[in-house]
Amino acid sequence: MSFSIEEARQFLFRPGFHLSDVDPASTPGVSSEAELAADFAQHDREISDLQENLWANARSGVDGTGSVLLVLQGMDTSGKGGLIKRLARVMHPMGLSFHAFGKPTPEEAAHDFLWRVRPKLPEPGEIAVFDRSHYEDVLVQKIEGYAEPAEIERRYGAIVDFENEVAARGTRIIKVMLHISRGFQYANLVERLTDEKKMWKFDRADLVARSKWEKYLAAYQTAFERTSTAQAPWYVVPGDNKEYARMVVKHLLVEQLRELQQPWPRPVDDLETARRHLDAS
Amino acid sequence: MSFSIEEARQFLFRPGFHLSDVDPASTPGVSSEAELAADFAQHDREISDLQENLWANARSGVDGTGSVLLVLQGMDTSGKGGLIKRLARVMHPMGLSFHAFGKPTPEEAAHDFLWRVRPKLPEPGEIAVFDRSHYEDVLVQKIEGYAEPAEIERRYGAIVDFENEVAARGTRIIKVMLHISRGFQYANLVERLTDEKKMWKFDRADLVARSKWEKYLAAYQTAFERTSTAQAPWYVVPGDNKEYARMVVKHLLVEQLRELQQPWPRPVDDLETARRHLDAS
Repeated sequence: MSFSIEEARQFLFRPGFHLSDVDPASTPGVSSEAELAADFAQHDREISDLQENLWANARSGVDGTGSVLLVLQGMDTSGKGGLIKRLARVMHPMGLSFHAFGKPTPEEAAHDFLWRVRPKLPEPGEIAVFDRSHYEDVLVQKIEGYAEPAEIERRYGAIVDFENEVAARGTRIIKVMLHISRGFQYANLVERLTDEKKMWKFDRADLVARSKWEKYLAAYQTAFERTSTAQAPWYVVPGDNKEYARMVVKHLLVEQLRELQQPWPRPVDDLETARRHLDAS
Repeated sequence: MSFSIEEARQFLFRPGFHLSDVDPASTPGVSSEAELAADFAQHDREISDLQENLWANARSGVDGTGSVLLVLQGMDTSGKGGLIKRLARVMHPMGLSFHAFGKPTPEEAAHDFLWRVRPKLPEPGEIAVFDRSHYEDVLVQKIEGYAEPAEIERRYGAIVDFENEVAARGTRIIKVMLHISRGFQYANLVERLTDEKKMWKFDRADLVARSKWEKYLAAYQTAFERTSTAQAPWYVVPGDNKEYARMVVKHLLVEQLRELQQPWPRPVDDLETARRHLDAS
């Protein structure tokens, strides 16, 4: 039995769902490494074809060609970057865009929090992946008090309005929290301090967030309750097994790509004439 | 004996080199499919590490971190897109950018031909790949008479100045022509007319260029003679075996990445203190 797209939906944040319902170390539906590897690669060919179909339609100017926005959130070392790397491997880079949102620059901070996000939204035919996002503005900004409580409240509503507007333009939105345990993060941070190739990612500021772990989980919980909508649902995916989390996200992605599929563009009406022109050229 | 980086340099355009010296169907240095597959993957791990090293240094604000610009040219169906797809598979998307240059938009056409290229140059730490480039402005524009001969003449010099300037800022420039035969293009175009998944790429305008094959080769030859410099050399790579061409380009890329390598950034001076802070967090 291989992992199914329906199974990926168990991680959908629904009313009554609590973060603590998801065990970061669990891998539901998968019982061995071999099974996981097979599940991981299950839709590779299909994803590649569907993405090319999307891109082909946009390039051919087909009206109503959609796009996908994948928002990735999670505590430091939760594997957002690695997930992006593995997703990219099965897709054509031309239709893909990635953007990492860091600490706002002074210019960004002088604007509304959504200002820097808008230019990074996917164009028709594109898949855009956000490594962190406008959700930082109701997570770290809330916990560190960078914004007043009333402003944080306003932002939840502004996010829902914003995402509705994006969805209405034909963008499928998938929001994923890679949910890791505190112990798993510890092991990852030790690795950063040990492996010279990984040390550049070590940032003492990460320890501040780590020391406020429970506050972050509570802020995530509230953010999900306020912003998980039918148009832009949140998924809370167990993250301690990185391969498992990546596999689940690929399943969520293929589901949306299937719904965006259109016939292949057909620029040539009369194949015989085209072939004659080719032979004569 | 596996293919070596030195062997890739046989395709360097040097004084006296003529396009007809390269047989598009040849695969020098490789005698079997198995050998080709091994040569193709030879530096995958190294490329991935070197790219991450480059990106890590740029992200850590290390002064003088370089970048790479790979310019791809070739007749239609020469495999530029596929090459990009295969290169992307071994790299992290965050440090990579791709840009396809099409027919200039009215806004682009109203500016100097280099205007649209500048914003697409790689930032420090990035590898940028151009699918077509400012060379179209001395190829199709020359052959179709979209620019006066005197303007074409001016452009060769402007390109050399421009590329010198880019190289002086720390960008390694690799320019590759994927050199295919007319017969190979015919087979590819037939495939586009046959495979519904490929038909969207069929463009009747491609047949115009096809019918002027020799003129294009002559324009390429002149462009190479005028713009192949030590800072921004051209390589003419046999393209009828797409896997072979991709393998050669990977070797050219790893050579430049090696020269850009720097020590891994080390944000933490005192590992013991950092570890104590981590344990306490």
